[in-house]
Amino acid sequence: MTDTNRQWHLASRPTGEPTMENFELVEADVPDPGPGEVLVESRYLSVDPYMRGRMRDAESYAEPWDVGEPMKAGVVGEVVESNHPRFESGDMATGELLWAEYATADGDALQPVDPDLAPVSTALGVLGMPGRTAYFGMLDVAEPEPGDTVLISGAAGAVGSVAGQIGKLNGCRVVGIAGAEEKTDWLTGELGFDDAINYKETENLRAAVAEACPEGVDVYYDNVGGPITDAAFANLNEFARVAVCGQISLYNATELPTGPRKLTTLVQKKARVEGFIVSDFQPHFRKATERLAGWVQSGDVQYKETVTEGFENMPDAFFGLFEGVNIGKQLVKVSE
Amino acid sequence: MTDTNRQWHLASRPTGEPTMENFELVEADVPDPGPGEVLVESRYLSVDPYMRGRMRDAESYAEPWDVGEPMKAGVVGEVVESNHPRFESGDMATGELLWAEYATADGDALQPVDPDLAPVSTALGVLGMPGRTAYFGMLDVAEPEPGDTVLISGAAGAVGSVAGQIGKLNGCRVVGIAGAEEKTDWLTGELGFDDAINYKETENLRAAVAEACPEGVDVYYDNVGGPITDAAFANLNEFARVAVCGQISLYNATELPTGPRKLTTLVQKKARVEGFIVSDFQPHFRKATERLAGWVQSGDVQYKETVTEGFENMPDAFFGLFEGVNIGKQLVKVSE
Repeated sequence: MTDTNRQWHLASRPTGEPTMENFELVEADVPDPGPGEVLVESRYLSVDPYMRGRMRDAESYAEPWDVGEPMKAGVVGEVVESNHPRFESGDMATGELLWAEYATADGDALQPVDPDLAPVSTALGVLGMPGRTAYFGMLDVAEPEPGDTVLISGAAGAVGSVAGQIGKLNGCRVVGIAGAEEKTDWLTGELGFDDAINYKETENLRAAVAEACPEGVDVYYDNVGGPITDAAFANLNEFARVAVCGQISLYNATELPTGPRKLTTLVQKKARVEGFIVSDFQPHFRKATERLAGWVQSGDVQYKETVTEGFENMPDAFFGLFEGVNIGKQLVKVSE
Repeated sequence: MTDTNRQWHLASRPTGEPTMENFELVEADVPDPGPGEVLVESRYLSVDPYMRGRMRDAESYAEPWDVGEPMKAGVVGEVVESNHPRFESGDMATGELLWAEYATADGDALQPVDPDLAPVSTALGVLGMPGRTAYFGMLDVAEPEPGDTVLISGAAGAVGSVAGQIGKLNGCRVVGIAGAEEKTDWLTGELGFDDAINYKETENLRAAVAEACPEGVDVYYDNVGGPITDAAFANLNEFARVAVCGQISLYNATELPTGPRKLTTLVQKKARVEGFIVSDFQPHFRKATERLAGWVQSGDVQYKETVTEGFENMPDAFFGLFEGVNIGKQLVKVSE
């Protein structure tokens, strides 16, 4: 532990694609934990697509971030000082903290991380928010049944890759859409997806989905939106369920995105489309994390991490999400 | 009974708005009922928006109608000859028959109509397919809860007017959108809607919905689609449910209708959008019809009918649906 602490602040709200101008690297003091609080030294920081929404000054399910203030992030790190009975120095903990090297939080808002269970970084990925998002979006929103065809956009990301494997565990034919051959190879070669489409190398995505899903699409788990989702909707079966997790292709839009109107399709197919936010499933987090951990230990769910080294590179890691740089969970490693 | 029988045939598939050129009035024989069949003389014929879809040669939940053949319609009429034990001459019956003065059907595919229960025309409206569509769309798809705000497009139509009254019976604040002052007056004055918006006299529909629904929209029952639906989506609450019954504003489109992409809204609001077809609720039709009949008898559900006289005017009655001519159920009266 040193007495210097760096933070990334939101310098300005992005218009369109975020750039370095929207971020400011600030030197701050290492904070003192108050009563009941814990001081955490960040080891891994998470960058996630939802953060783009927090940079916007618009009503959403969560408050926007303030300009001139440190941004928030999922963090896993080491407890270096604790005023909370549940944590001791040297413990590993995770929670929503800051884009910072050090941060304090109420100990009740942190979860302990067991380094013997799995690498601690998984607390931000397959055993953390993205894994749970895949879990609840598939099992509670999309409700796949054995024999269903499950189509997943953003399939090689932190959420999509887990969602697809949960589909396989539920006896489904699983097809992923991703944007690089390295990704589609990973999906079909290692994760057990039945097929995968590289949309960047596909002229007619609608036809490619039809070919990869010869019996149509019963479940579409959407992380992406836009034209990829148009192609998916064109292949929905009767009584299809669409779980809308994210729309990363639209998050940087500067004008209201438009596209084909889809509600007539929903009537014709008697289909259901449902958006969800993982935090609404909070009462069931413990069970979900336990099941995910079991699947990771058994090898039924595999995961990948793309790790950017160095706190100073956190905005770059964030930008990369919108370019599809990462395979699996994008993390920033801050300290050993 | 005469020995002449007129039928309307589909002469050609419409491009855009249907016109008289798409229809042909044909003289045919009065058919003889075969074994188990019943001959019905039409009294009222139903024209419905879904018929536009059957005129199209496109995959949907039902087969398209054939060019050169008589079109199908909901009919209530008198049994004039019966080879089925459930029906006698003089009985009133309803079922899916033809755009025709006389038609035969298997007696098992017809339902008896009790003229003492309600006017027989209601078998095509509030106690028929449109009433049941309102019933299941509200209670099984939209699932309103007491205190919810329910917004309905096409609110003065056969389906919307019943859907709104079912919302009131379930303790909701109900707001209707319709296209004429006579309609909005009926909704608020007689049907007990809490508010109604005449979209044709409204410059900013999104703001008008916000004003009429100060606590936001929990349930949106959509019969219309297009810009009216855009205004509704802009006012959805968290955990809103959208029941998509129809999209009449889009049925005559000659190009793929486009509009604002809505899935990001669904994520932010954790909202659900579900299309449905009433025939999927067939096992529950009897209960629904009984409850609707009870509400009609108690006055809890009121209805209106717009009756076009004369079989020869059936296409005109159909065209009127797309111009919003009708209040309540649009019928064609063929015989006394």
